[in-house]
Amino acid sequence: MVHYAPYLALPKHLINIRITEIINKFDKKIKPMDPLVIWTNVYLNPSEVALLQSETKHHQLILADAGPHVLAQNSGDPRLSSADVVFGQPNPEDLLTSHALRWTHVSSAGYTRYDSPSFWQHFCSRGIIFTNSSAVFSEPCAEHALAALLAHTRQLYPSYLDQLQRREWQQNAIRAASSLLSEQTIVIVGFGTIGQRLAEFLKPFGSATFACRRRPEPYPGVKVLSLDELPNVLPVADHVLNFLPENTGTIRFFDQARFSRFKRGACYYSLGRGTTTDQPALIEALTSSRLAAAYLDVTEPEPLPPDHPLWSTTNCYITPHSSGGHYNEALRLTKHFLNNLRRFENGEPLINRIV
Amino acid sequence: MVHYAPYLALPKHLINIRITEIINKFDKKIKPMDPLVIWTNVYLNPSEVALLQSETKHHQLILADAGPHVLAQNSGDPRLSSADVVFGQPNPEDLLTSHALRWTHVSSAGYTRYDSPSFWQHFCSRGIIFTNSSAVFSEPCAEHALAALLAHTRQLYPSYLDQLQRREWQQNAIRAASSLLSEQTIVIVGFGTIGQRLAEFLKPFGSATFACRRRPEPYPGVKVLSLDELPNVLPVADHVLNFLPENTGTIRFFDQARFSRFKRGACYYSLGRGTTTDQPALIEALTSSRLAAAYLDVTEPEPLPPDHPLWSTTNCYITPHSSGGHYNEALRLTKHFLNNLRRFENGEPLINRIV
Repeated sequence: MVHYAPYLALPKHLINIRITEIINKFDKKIKPMDPLVIWTNVYLNPSEVALLQSETKHHQLILADAGPHVLAQNSGDPRLSSADVVFGQPNPEDLLTSHALRWTHVSSAGYTRYDSPSFWQHFCSRGIIFTNSSAVFSEPCAEHALAALLAHTRQLYPSYLDQLQRREWQQNAIRAASSLLSEQTIVIVGFGTIGQRLAEFLKPFGSATFACRRRPEPYPGVKVLSLDELPNVLPVADHVLNFLPENTGTIRFFDQARFSRFKRGACYYSLGRGTTTDQPALIEALTSSRLAAAYLDVTEPEPLPPDHPLWSTTNCYITPHSSGGHYNEALRLTKHFLNNLRRFENGEPLINRIV
Repeated sequence: MVHYAPYLALPKHLINIRITEIINKFDKKIKPMDPLVIWTNVYLNPSEVALLQSETKHHQLILADAGPHVLAQNSGDPRLSSADVVFGQPNPEDLLTSHALRWTHVSSAGYTRYDSPSFWQHFCSRGIIFTNSSAVFSEPCAEHALAALLAHTRQLYPSYLDQLQRREWQQNAIRAASSLLSEQTIVIVGFGTIGQRLAEFLKPFGSATFACRRRPEPYPGVKVLSLDELPNVLPVADHVLNFLPENTGTIRFFDQARFSRFKRGACYYSLGRGTTTDQPALIEALTSSRLAAAYLDVTEPEPLPPDHPLWSTTNCYITPHSSGGHYNEALRLTKHFLNNLRRFENGEPLINRIV
């Protein structure tokens, strides 16, 4: 916990400050229960492996080969068939053929590779629990979205381009292109945990904030609409943020027809899945100046090939699907899993349960 | 007000949303009073000139030549000597020799060129009021500071550099270098209206927030310390933001000694005045990797010459003194002045009064 240790050096009266920890402390002792077989292929550093081992010492832990990054899918492991609990990115086929399985906890927010009726039917009919790690990624994703919004209003990219190239100190031009997020209108499309966290960040700005989702529910400070009502708000939005998951209803959701409803000079942000954007239509909307800029953290395909036209489209700014990332994500993933493991042991409701 | 007109096209049930306007509406009618001579050299567009004329029609308005931007100083205008009210960036000498002057409202947040004992003595002895425009600039400055904080934690600049150069989709590297602002410790040095607005923005993050100022006063959610206590918190700060004004106590305030107290890998942000940073010491702190990055909106001199070493110092990111800027700043400056003019006419306390 590199961020907290230095406090020990502080004078005592400075220590009493509030630090929000998203991940709950798991100070409960493990109750006696039959040992579980826990299989994981999450990419972990030695310190997280040690934490996992220490916190699962009453169980049997199988450390399978991890892929090249935390979200890499396992290519198949016969040992998974004996596991009660699976934590990571297991091969979906392995899950379907396992007979011992009681709970799968994926180390990602998205779960497209498991999202099929036959998969859910298998889990439901056998009472297998499926949880994801959206609590771990919603915070960085929402922070990333606000970073992109403010990078636009404060014109950080054009300033940096001038620093790299001509160093003209374009004070007048940059100031004239800057704006106040607090005066603007924001539309969040796909209003789950990430969008809701973004709405919390936006509250002190006082920005006019709309959200569109399949099943609208009231949310403080946000006007929540159905996806059908999106065309009514697109013409007034300064910023439209796409957090849609990938499913049959969202493939190429932002297409030529929807971009044509945007206010001229609006900005588009895509942080959910690359497939939900019709990329040729986006390129057209940018080159025709319908959109002032686009900020993409997801593309189709990923990685985006170096010669793909999106890279060089005017005012299209790309991050490499990094919005959920953070240097300590393996630690936070591990803590999130262990928090749920304590709940599983105690028969309590699990966090981020999908089925 | 381009942002609000499109709402007229909205269904009625969507219109009822809260939009924060920092600038108060000035719907009070002007009371009869002796006409004032109002001199201004603020750079305005025709629409703002029309607003100013319409709202000062009971007075005599002198529109002096404006400089090349809103903050350019006037080089001297004999007509100023007859003015009761001055709005803009007047020559200090002109203010001292004027006999009619009752109130000066500068169109900037900073007022270094007026900040001398003899100047204040002249104003106080004659009961001349001096106000500034910090209310107009604190919002964009605070948004700019948060933009820079999040640009760092979300690694926007390295992503953009890769987009411009190699297009390697450095997902693993960028994720590993990203972090959560919500888990970090922030120290705000110089805690006036800008820093306080930033603290409001930081509240939903739950970041540990300290502030240091000459005269500490309690502030919700922030541990406010004196400037003398800064060395105690520097070693725990992930981000140190410098909003100090320029005065005899702040010149090169962030020097080699203070940078040496920073935690290794911390970030430095300078958004007040360039002279408050010892730039050679900053370059040394960056090249020695004591600091992970610096985000400068102010430098010494400005404009920064193209061959200045700061431009090419590793992880030094520069914006051209644009943090207070916004496309509608002349309009918001005009409204802020007119709001104060209404108060002046009515004998009410002025906003952003310095003396």
